[in-house]
Amino acid sequence: MPAPLKVALAGLGNVGAGVVKLIDANADLIARRAGRPIEIVAVAARDKSRDRGFDASRFQWADATTLADISGVDVVAELIGGSEGTALDLARATISAGKAFVTANKAMIAHHGLALAEEAEKAGVAFKYEAAVAGGIPVIKGLREGAAANEITQVYGILNGTCNYILTTMEAEGRDFGAVLADAQALGYAEADPAFDVDGIDAAHKLSILASLSFGTRIDFAHVKTSGIRQVLAGDIAQAKALGYRVRLVGRAEAASDGLLQSVQPCLVPVSHPLAHVAGAMNAVVAHGNFVGRLFFEGRGAGEGPTASAVVADLIDIARGEVGPAFAMPVASLADPGQANGGARQGRFYLRFTVADRPGVLAEITAAMRDAGVSIESLIQRGEAPDGGVLLVLTTHACAEANVSGALAQLGGSASLVGAPMLMPILDV
Amino acid sequence: MPAPLKVALAGLGNVGAGVVKLIDANADLIARRAGRPIEIVAVAARDKSRDRGFDASRFQWADATTLADISGVDVVAELIGGSEGTALDLARATISAGKAFVTANKAMIAHHGLALAEEAEKAGVAFKYEAAVAGGIPVIKGLREGAAANEITQVYGILNGTCNYILTTMEAEGRDFGAVLADAQALGYAEADPAFDVDGIDAAHKLSILASLSFGTRIDFAHVKTSGIRQVLAGDIAQAKALGYRVRLVGRAEAASDGLLQSVQPCLVPVSHPLAHVAGAMNAVVAHGNFVGRLFFEGRGAGEGPTASAVVADLIDIARGEVGPAFAMPVASLADPGQANGGARQGRFYLRFTVADRPGVLAEITAAMRDAGVSIESLIQRGEAPDGGVLLVLTTHACAEANVSGALAQLGGSASLVGAPMLMPILDV
Repeated sequence: MPAPLKVALAGLGNVGAGVVKLIDANADLIARRAGRPIEIVAVAARDKSRDRGFDASRFQWADATTLADISGVDVVAELIGGSEGTALDLARATISAGKAFVTANKAMIAHHGLALAEEAEKAGVAFKYEAAVAGGIPVIKGLREGAAANEITQVYGILNGTCNYILTTMEAEGRDFGAVLADAQALGYAEADPAFDVDGIDAAHKLSILASLSFGTRIDFAHVKTSGIRQVLAGDIAQAKALGYRVRLVGRAEAASDGLLQSVQPCLVPVSHPLAHVAGAMNAVVAHGNFVGRLFFEGRGAGEGPTASAVVADLIDIARGEVGPAFAMPVASLADPGQANGGARQGRFYLRFTVADRPGVLAEITAAMRDAGVSIESLIQRGEAPDGGVLLVLTTHACAEANVSGALAQLGGSASLVGAPMLMPILDV
Repeated sequence: MPAPLKVALAGLGNVGAGVVKLIDANADLIARRAGRPIEIVAVAARDKSRDRGFDASRFQWADATTLADISGVDVVAELIGGSEGTALDLARATISAGKAFVTANKAMIAHHGLALAEEAEKAGVAFKYEAAVAGGIPVIKGLREGAAANEITQVYGILNGTCNYILTTMEAEGRDFGAVLADAQALGYAEADPAFDVDGIDAAHKLSILASLSFGTRIDFAHVKTSGIRQVLAGDIAQAKALGYRVRLVGRAEAASDGLLQSVQPCLVPVSHPLAHVAGAMNAVVAHGNFVGRLFFEGRGAGEGPTASAVVADLIDIARGEVGPAFAMPVASLADPGQANGGARQGRFYLRFTVADRPGVLAEITAAMRDAGVSIESLIQRGEAPDGGVLLVLTTHACAEANVSGALAQLGGSASLVGAPMLMPILDV
């Protein structure tokens, strides 16, 4: 048996501890599959004495930023998180020490992934991040290698388990966002400060990485149009259901003729689409390739076990000698994505207004639609909104998003509207 | 740009022609992703003059078995099919010429894959077969690399698109097997001789490959317990639906304490399970890993484009220099799977009897169940069977399969039964 691959782990939180447990539990199997044992030799974490369910004193303990300097270490796995600070310092130090680097850190990759990948190419070391997107689902590998023969026309998916848990719980229980979020926080499914998840930022980090891999373009997190799920009402979910749809937070990137469109927003997904059946904290990714057609991947997007599974898959690849470019091709080969005109995008839309209960409201809204060239497919006026108004829901025929925005702008100052309207695209693929 | 990877293609049927079209269409993208161009230089096919939608005269034409001898060829891709004969000769000739070998041939791998992989290991050449299982879905890579950190406890899926097309069409239209098969044949979705597909043999080939990859065991096609879909009635599908299930042909391998269980048979899948939503000719594979949990992959399992996508993914891996063992670990490391006692397996079951319409039948059947220790969960007696009898459907509580078989044996000679009973496991995962 060849020499073991020696790993230093930065971070012994849930994910780091999961990596230790996984390598302890599956050591023999991993050695058979990797062709050599994988051995954790050093760790960095804040608290050496904390009970993590295994003996951590057997590892050499060091400051995170010095892990790469430890003699004999082949790979550093960064499981600290945060786009800057220690994680970034460690990434740079590891690569410049000529060692392989593995991370689960989507924020750091979204912001600094290209620069790090360039450094890794120069140093000739592996830089891998399967765990950064969709947890245990091998979707980075699936896009970078499995679908590599295809021109990808679009990639989209459910990339944040917290949001999907909240939306599918709202759906199952008919309750509103705030109440379900509070429960999720109490259960530990959502952070005390949930903004990163529920405002779509985490999903946007992941989407920007998927887009780069899919389209051979530079990561462009700054241009992901991002909105979260705070504005979704239980009433939206009920109306969508009546129309044959479910509401999901969908991160979506597509190649238009004039550039790339990247968005993270709540969407209506037809019940016939596999994304409609992704429940709870699961994640899923769909890619459309010009030869393979639609590929769908589903699995656990977070948590100790699934994330550790992805981290160790990267370590096994490295043990097998794989040193391919991090973004499927050298960074210098990645194209500038360009910004497509999102307003020109054709699609169908769901619009929900909370309106005052008085005559003429319907005429005002339908006139605004007509003036903007938006053709209405269905219209439902029903029930009480939380703020005392009436919910008015409509779906449009296919039209340019700019037309719908035009109609909303025209209605902007209207006294008929109680609160802001909610616009959701209908996934039509 | 480094030198191109030079490919010889054996077979220019649908799949071979698809590979040519794909490489023509996506050449630049492939070169960027593979780090070098991929170029078809030679082909072997029966008919040089046939119109395939591209100019095939630009390639060097040769006999299939001589492709590996052509100077400059780096890889031979075998797209002829058949477990023996030319395909097998070509595989051996290619590997012994020290060249990489790619195939879409599940039958050959199920029967000769281990011997070929051993030869490839000795020769130090790549031997790859992503297209052999589930067409365009990168499930070989997903199991071999993506889920490599996990002990897999079970792997199962919908592995034959023809059967899934027939079953889901029966479901949608309420028609019986024979009529739907005839339509499928007229439409070109089923072969004139459909036995290979509808009797489950094709799925069993694929399952034996998935089992080897998942469990690190030797391929054991001979012990896949295989039954097809000919016995499934429209009435079974309707009764299953009423109970909250759909009928799918499921190939399934699981690691029991006393060995491996491999089967291909029609099963009842709960509508909450992602396999229940796999419609038409799609394929899907599920794997349960001890850390990652449940992974689900779905996509097109056959056809020109998807199969070509998988073949070219293998070529890209080879162009990148990947020469890992074909079955995730050296053949010598694969364990003997052992044969688990399938009868001891606990599960719930669906049983359909066609019975004579006379008193005492129900008492006879329920007594046989009681005597065999099988507890009945639900029982429906309804409608006319195609042969004039009455359909009697029951589902059991969890019990050993041997007990259900015992009850059926006791009923074996009964004059109350018109035709053979139908037994389907209920997927409970």
